[in-house]
Amino acid sequence: MKKPLDITSLEADALLDLAQRLADAARVETLARFRPLGGIAAANKDAGGFDPVTEADRAAEAAMRAILAKERPNDGIFGEEQGQSLGTSGYVWVLDPIDGTRGFMSGTPTWGVLIGLAQVVDGALGAPFLGVVDQPYIGERFIGGLGQARLIGPHGEFPLKTRAAAPQALADAVLFTTFPEVGTAAEGAAFRQVSQAAKLTRYGMDCYAYALLAAGQIDLVIEAQLHPYDIQGPMAVVEAAGGLVTDWQGGPAHLGGQVIAAANPEVHAAALALLNA
Amino acid sequence: MKKPLDITSLEADALLDLAQRLADAARVETLARFRPLGGIAAANKDAGGFDPVTEADRAAEAAMRAILAKERPNDGIFGEEQGQSLGTSGYVWVLDPIDGTRGFMSGTPTWGVLIGLAQVVDGALGAPFLGVVDQPYIGERFIGGLGQARLIGPHGEFPLKTRAAAPQALADAVLFTTFPEVGTAAEGAAFRQVSQAAKLTRYGMDCYAYALLAAGQIDLVIEAQLHPYDIQGPMAVVEAAGGLVTDWQGGPAHLGGQVIAAANPEVHAAALALLNA
Repeated sequence: MKKPLDITSLEADALLDLAQRLADAARVETLARFRPLGGIAAANKDAGGFDPVTEADRAAEAAMRAILAKERPNDGIFGEEQGQSLGTSGYVWVLDPIDGTRGFMSGTPTWGVLIGLAQVVDGALGAPFLGVVDQPYIGERFIGGLGQARLIGPHGEFPLKTRAAAPQALADAVLFTTFPEVGTAAEGAAFRQVSQAAKLTRYGMDCYAYALLAAGQIDLVIEAQLHPYDIQGPMAVVEAAGGLVTDWQGGPAHLGGQVIAAANPEVHAAALALLNA
Repeated sequence: MKKPLDITSLEADALLDLAQRLADAARVETLARFRPLGGIAAANKDAGGFDPVTEADRAAEAAMRAILAKERPNDGIFGEEQGQSLGTSGYVWVLDPIDGTRGFMSGTPTWGVLIGLAQVVDGALGAPFLGVVDQPYIGERFIGGLGQARLIGPHGEFPLKTRAAAPQALADAVLFTTFPEVGTAAEGAAFRQVSQAAKLTRYGMDCYAYALLAAGQIDLVIEAQLHPYDIQGPMAVVEAAGGLVTDWQGGPAHLGGQVIAAANPEVHAAALALLNA
């Protein structure tokens, strides 16, 4: 059963402020280690593949955890690097200190610090009601939830609003995903059904694609094999901006897996039909 | 025959200053039209495919041309949008007002304004000796040539220097290209020979990939079917930072076509061998 969210406006302001302070702390730690001359010496946490973990990842999560330990010690923390606990307050902070470590290692300004805030529902991580996607190098922060949906960036502050359906919802759509393979062979094949029907497919943006969707610039993001911390922050931002985030069957996506984020119900339905054709 | 470059330091300063003023003018025109709510209404200049031309493209080139017409009326201009002339001074400005129009249309901060300055050699466009890759949204400018190789960005000013070869030049290399298909089927197959031997391949960065190479963050950029205006600006920046830019046979690349940019001779040789295997 989903618990209704019972947060006063004073609490909401405090949570929004805290989320921003977490993002500020992560900015310091990530930026200090971004684009060193000669590249990054990344540890390899998965011997079977290329899954770099940098010092920046660890330091940024530690910095966020230190703030939470002081300010909200009873909240749970679900982090990419340093474990998960549901806490006792009923709230869980879902942290991905660097989403897009490959992009980070390559110097691209399209990785992000992801922060989600979710309720505990039936003893498990629920859907996020607040999210931040932060790009420290550009100095861009996308915030969604608790009545807010805005971008604070190098050129000012702007409302976030996903765009309305084009005349041909899918044929006019711009689709993003991170890797051309998109998960398993079957997942890749399903993705290509949508990709072939869309106007344009672009790759390599990681969480930044969800930020672009929230900002009304693109129509679809489709990914597979996500972790909860990959999607909770972006999900709250996209939903606050008017978009939809579900799994490929139209069900809940807050635990990751196969995720589709759409700017409007029309393009969501059209893409879902092809994913399941 | 290649003409020796005969430019006094006073002239060099003036040309560097002018190149920056061109980039400044293009910034104003492109930024004013970047990320409108609801996306960009792009004209379609190629009925057979998706080749958007935006008002930003046209306005930025016109703004640069207006400055050149006033300041250096005898120089040639080789622009993407508004035609080509070699001029009478022996110098040609090679302008791509927006490299990465698809990225621009999608709101990604990885398109760029490209400016190259080349000599006329035997009545044709020669290789560039000065280049600028400018990313207006981030506020990043990569400049190379006439004794300079630097990044002016939101976090300060930094020297540009390509990185040295890794212990395993290619197996440890990070490779970028814009489209997974990479040109024709044969070109794509050759590219994949290199991609499969590299540590990591990333997509979708357009000119920004050359900037990352110049900044010492990645090792290789391999593309096909480029126009002269796609490569002249980036080429000068990469070469000034210590990198190599050739065609896939190791010959001149300043007129575009199949282009490989490499951080060092070792990774260049290793990639070239696979491209031609």
